Amino acid sequence: MNNVTLKQLAEKLNLSTSTVSRALRDSHEIGQETKDRVKALAKKLKFQPNPHASSLRQHKSNTIAVLIPEIENTFFSQVINGVELVAQSKGYHVLIYLTHEDYNKETEILRLLKNGRADGVMISVSNTTKNTKHLQSFQKDGIPLVLFDRTCDELNAPKVMTDDIEIAMIATEKLINSGCKRIAFISMSANLSISKRRVKGYRQALQKYDLQKNAVIIECGGNDAENKKKISKIFKSSTPPDGIFTATEKLAVITYEVCRENEIKLPRTFKMVSFSNLPAAALFHPPLSTIIQPAFEIGKEAASILFKLIEKKTLLPTEKRVIIPSQLVERN
Amino acid sequence: MNNVTLKQLAEKLNLSTSTVSRALRDSHEIGQETKDRVKALAKKLKFQPNPHASSLRQHKSNTIAVLIPEIENTFFSQVINGVELVAQSKGYHVLIYLTHEDYNKETEILRLLKNGRADGVMISVSNTTKNTKHLQSFQKDGIPLVLFDRTCDELNAPKVMTDDIEIAMIATEKLINSGCKRIAFISMSANLSISKRRVKGYRQALQKYDLQKNAVIIECGGNDAENKKKISKIFKSSTPPDGIFTATEKLAVITYEVCRENEIKLPRTFKMVSFSNLPAAALFHPPLSTIIQPAFEIGKEAASILFKLIEKKTLLPTEKRVIIPSQLVERN
Repeated sequence: MNNVTLKQLAEKLNLSTSTVSRALRDSHEIGQETKDRVKALAKKLKFQPNPHASSLRQHKSNTIAVLIPEIENTFFSQVINGVELVAQSKGYHVLIYLTHEDYNKETEILRLLKNGRADGVMISVSNTTKNTKHLQSFQKDGIPLVLFDRTCDELNAPKVMTDDIEIAMIATEKLINSGCKRIAFISMSANLSISKRRVKGYRQALQKYDLQKNAVIIECGGNDAENKKKISKIFKSSTPPDGIFTATEKLAVITYEVCRENEIKLPRTFKMVSFSNLPAAALFHPPLSTIIQPAFEIGKEAASILFKLIEKKTLLPTEKRVIIPSQLVERN
Repeated sequence: MNNVTLKQLAEKLNLSTSTVSRALRDSHEIGQETKDRVKALAKKLKFQPNPHASSLRQHKSNTIAVLIPEIENTFFSQVINGVELVAQSKGYHVLIYLTHEDYNKETEILRLLKNGRADGVMISVSNTTKNTKHLQSFQKDGIPLVLFDRTCDELNAPKVMTDDIEIAMIATEKLINSGCKRIAFISMSANLSISKRRVKGYRQALQKYDLQKNAVIIECGGNDAENKKKISKIFKSSTPPDGIFTATEKLAVITYEVCRENEIKLPRTFKMVSFSNLPAAALFHPPLSTIIQPAFEIGKEAASILFKLIEKKTLLPTEKRVIIPSQLVERN
């Protein structure tokens, strides 16, 4: 970089660096005339304060970090859009970290973030995260932490999510009301709080219609090929499902692929609904009914709460656990 | 943060901070016994060097920045996946900036990045970027810059892209060979180099089959509603197209929507192909033939070149302009 430094500025003005620094920060200890001279030359030479020096002095980095399991997922892209909007308005920079559904990577990234690189952290945990030790250890260092979407119930930190239980119940009920009696729920890893919430809503609907005995829950992991095998199996059962409810967009796409490969016709053979924020879901054949999560709003809200913590403001009780409703879009 | 500082470490050891700092960096000026003592206590107290102090001392931030027009786009998500893989292997952090197709925002972000927050920058320019002044001004400060996908031909910086001309020509030829005579090309903003390359390939194919007089190029901007109007118009012409080639995934989705709303049947009425990295394109009705760009590889390659520049290594002539081929997947 050819940037002029504070020291060079001071030399040219025949002032001390501390005077120049204070003049630029508009300190009351410096006279107006000196301030004007310093600012004029700083502008002329395009002086920009070194962010690392500013961070050291102010004990802040003007940066937040977002940890997500993956980025090739409409939901998380939309969340980042919301986060970025808030961060830009605050003059903050956004570090993105992908955990690739790996608990060890998640732990390592949080460990590196303890040293002040970010003023606050937002996380949606990986599906291999079975405990919160690493999050608790991170919190001990006093850096603000907000959980979103894939939250951990047991952790004392603000959480922003959608109404997973209610919307899963509504979607299951819709399938039942359209004639389905054997609805399979294709779920993410069972150790995620979010999976438990969605399964709960599914079970509540079955119970309401006395269909609990027909419950089929397929737990899928991170490996697409294995997930495909698991999903294929249910269609080969002697009592195949007449309704499918998938917990993620990816699992819906895999189910469509399984059907195509096995020449199973949707929705004559069965009906399907999925959590998905893919705008193109309407173009699928047949169109997929989707639960659209307020991803952008979740990102915006989680970031706003994070900034309240960074600015040491007190959270409202309602800001400790925020639930933003999803929307069921029925198609075909 | 409750992290122990270098100063506290030094006090506890009864050493100077500079001795402790040099011991931790394994300086040859410090004896082995002292190093062992310092490292043992640093480990015990979980000392982590302050990243801002390290950045100031070493004149590097261990951070790279990626500027993209939008994130809700499979192509850019896959690019970030590739960038992140390389950055993680180098122990680097990744800042993501969205320009939202806004030249002014792009200029402002680059201006802020001049002060050393990132050791290198990767950019895919916005569709409102009509000149390279801001990029040239950025380069003057000596910070490594790599362009990818939406590059600027006139700028002297390494570029990583796909074979836009060749693959656009191949895709257009496929439409011609399947019987299309009036192929419309639905393009991004004409001021992008990438648009010019794709239009060039399209025109070359028409010329080869003596169909230049039937060329129809619709230039779409950032506004979805206006794009929809423009696309609707071509179907209302007295000589509607029998083939459509869209330059982006979003434009393909809009075209499908226009067809659905106007009850135009694909592909009986016309055939369609698009640049798109959406894994679900196969599930569209009818399935969309797609040009799959090597997004992950573009991200990986652009990041690798950026790190060569950061590490002050010499680029091979082939690394100054890297072209990674796309793949045409025909469906239906």
